[in-house]
Amino acid sequence: MKRRRIIVYVATSADGFIARKDGRVDWLDRPHPKGSYGMGEFFKSVDVVLLGAKTYGEAVTRGGGFGQKMKYYVFTHHPPATPVKGVEFVNEPVKDFAARLRGQPGKDIWIMGGAGLIASFVDAGEVDDFIVHVIPTFIGEGIPLIAPAERTLPVTLKGTKQYEDGVVRLHYAT
Amino acid sequence: MKRRRIIVYVATSADGFIARKDGRVDWLDRPHPKGSYGMGEFFKSVDVVLLGAKTYGEAVTRGGGFGQKMKYYVFTHHPPATPVKGVEFVNEPVKDFAARLRGQPGKDIWIMGGAGLIASFVDAGEVDDFIVHVIPTFIGEGIPLIAPAERTLPVTLKGTKQYEDGVVRLHYAT
Repeated sequence: MKRRRIIVYVATSADGFIARKDGRVDWLDRPHPKGSYGMGEFFKSVDVVLLGAKTYGEAVTRGGGFGQKMKYYVFTHHPPATPVKGVEFVNEPVKDFAARLRGQPGKDIWIMGGAGLIASFVDAGEVDDFIVHVIPTFIGEGIPLIAPAERTLPVTLKGTKQYEDGVVRLHYAT
Repeated sequence: MKRRRIIVYVATSADGFIARKDGRVDWLDRPHPKGSYGMGEFFKSVDVVLLGAKTYGEAVTRGGGFGQKMKYYVFTHHPPATPVKGVEFVNEPVKDFAARLRGQPGKDIWIMGGAGLIASFVDAGEVDDFIVHVIPTFIGEGIPLIAPAERTLPVTLKGTKQYEDGVVRLHYAT
């Protein structure tokens, strides 16, 4: 059985932020070049999406749908009283959750964010890949990719790709 | 006369920090590949180095020399009582300073850092290029490239270069 990889797949500003301090991502609102940075290919390679509670809340607010092609897991200490179709609310240590998921056959696993969830998976040693799309806009301050704490995580560059609109994809493996 | 470009030329962690919170850059201490990321070429293209007071202080503490090939300007409100050979202490609005320097013939101008000085030049609209070497190590928290404030600075990607040790150079122009 192929090992399921757990992948942080996100966009950051040129200065490394995933959102402004208040969560706004206005600088992400730009026309996509043909091929949309290979997002279609990536989406086909995963069948599980992991979200933190806040990122989930923002997706719901924006009217984001939770389609049937993917299984969504939302990490939260406060699951809603009413079940949500296609979404499972998780309150389990990251290590146990990752072992359980990796033990089931399936495609790769996408950590959508936010910074807190990414940090939890990083600190549990459960992130295999970082695929970061660097948008050519500096925003000056914001929410960093990984919730702040001193770390030293050397990674291996697997590749870079430069898109016509100035977006750069950096692919690292841990 | 060729316009002198003002260039932020720095290394950041994979998560966009120029130093740890306390200023340490231990994650930069790594063997350089042959060619040292083209640093020699870059150094030949500049003849002026701009430093903030803190970056200057750290350079002095580390025993950094201020060679004769470059002219060093240190931005500080508290110039030392004794002159330092090869170093000029500046306490002048960035706009005026930049206009004065650009009005003199010479090579390009290197802003070495830190984040506060970079921010001052960014906010004055006086940065022409960002040449960022992204080190393949996440450090989790630290001093961002530009001292924090909300900004929206779209830039043009001029090129990327991938080095054998996983360092990536991102070159942006404003």
